[in-house]
Amino acid sequence: MSEARESGRLPTEIFFAEDSENHPRAKALIEATEKSGGEAIRTTRAILTKLSGKDNPQAVVGIYPEFDLSLETLNRDSAPIWLVAQALRDPGNLGTMLRTGDAVGAGGLILVDDCADPFSVEAVRASMGALFTLGIAAAPWPEFLAWLRAGKGQLVGTSLDTDLDYQEPRYEKPAFLLVGNESAGLPADYAATCDLLVKMPMMGKADSLNAAVATAVMAYEVLNQFRR
Amino acid sequence: MSEARESGRLPTEIFFAEDSENHPRAKALIEATEKSGGEAIRTTRAILTKLSGKDNPQAVVGIYPEFDLSLETLNRDSAPIWLVAQALRDPGNLGTMLRTGDAVGAGGLILVDDCADPFSVEAVRASMGALFTLGIAAAPWPEFLAWLRAGKGQLVGTSLDTDLDYQEPRYEKPAFLLVGNESAGLPADYAATCDLLVKMPMMGKADSLNAAVATAVMAYEVLNQFRR
Repeated sequence: MSEARESGRLPTEIFFAEDSENHPRAKALIEATEKSGGEAIRTTRAILTKLSGKDNPQAVVGIYPEFDLSLETLNRDSAPIWLVAQALRDPGNLGTMLRTGDAVGAGGLILVDDCADPFSVEAVRASMGALFTLGIAAAPWPEFLAWLRAGKGQLVGTSLDTDLDYQEPRYEKPAFLLVGNESAGLPADYAATCDLLVKMPMMGKADSLNAAVATAVMAYEVLNQFRR
Repeated sequence: MSEARESGRLPTEIFFAEDSENHPRAKALIEATEKSGGEAIRTTRAILTKLSGKDNPQAVVGIYPEFDLSLETLNRDSAPIWLVAQALRDPGNLGTMLRTGDAVGAGGLILVDDCADPFSVEAVRASMGALFTLGIAAAPWPEFLAWLRAGKGQLVGTSLDTDLDYQEPRYEKPAFLLVGNESAGLPADYAATCDLLVKMPMMGKADSLNAAVATAVMAYEVLNQFRR
């Protein structure tokens, strides 16, 4: 929640443990919430456990207004890397991608087609706060493509159906790194639309990586090129 | 299970759906199991659903003998990369590490100290069969260290307490890539024992990556150096 506050997001309601209202970080959150017109509610650890679904809850639990997920909220010039998830079904993967996105300095995560809920408990936990520090948007493929092509941006897909090693191309800013569904991968016509299709070397018996892992390996390659 | 068979592992019991015994892969598994002295049991899809805990189970479910997890089962000269997980608590992370290990041509995964169960449902699923294609061992830290130092091997730890960028060193075969507990990271004395301590660049607000992601980013850097 401190990450969220630093990113300008405050809860509409904040619940805090009666024994923690003088904790500096909790206090700062409570004051900022009240100042912005939100409500601060003193409660017990037992209630926080119920609210958070965690055995060992944080000292505060907040309720946030729904995010605006339209593509127009993203400023593509603000970052060199963007992550794009197509029909990812595992909320843990989405959260992990957000966490990785923060680490590589990505501008945000764009959810294309029918993805898991990035605001589910599993995704929020896996994101380790990055849900609040990264941009996030959702759109069906045609809408995403129209938005992408209305400006600068290299669309890079990871695929099994290519011979181009992911370390060969020189990537261009802003790079949009597209990963497809955990089982099906990218639909063929989506892959055909990419500016580049690349693959990671696979030395073993399996033919693919976990989607969040593939995204991270790609994103660090792009970051490594950009920071040279 | 086909991966397992190709790696020489066969179940002691195999349960198969009555409508699938003529499916070529199921048939091959059933025959191989019976030939090795195992038992093949015809059953229904409903029973397979119960046995596997999956709504949409595979056509066969197998019971395997327990693995020998001693370090002596590993041949360090058989592969250039080895993964080492220290006190990792998330079985999904272990499974994902196995899957990544297969992809980078690692010899296996070594579980140091009190890790999650690599044979739990979550780990097995995340490993996508790599549990059967990679070596796997478990040992407390002193025992692992004694084994490691009795032969060749560069111990590379990922840590937040170092300034050495992970792309700077030239890694040596066999490289043992050590990642610590999801919350606590590596204990300081373990880190001090490493031949190299490296870190990935972190451009955002978070200070760490998911453990399986960090392992994958490291492992691909090492693979990329070795394959040049």
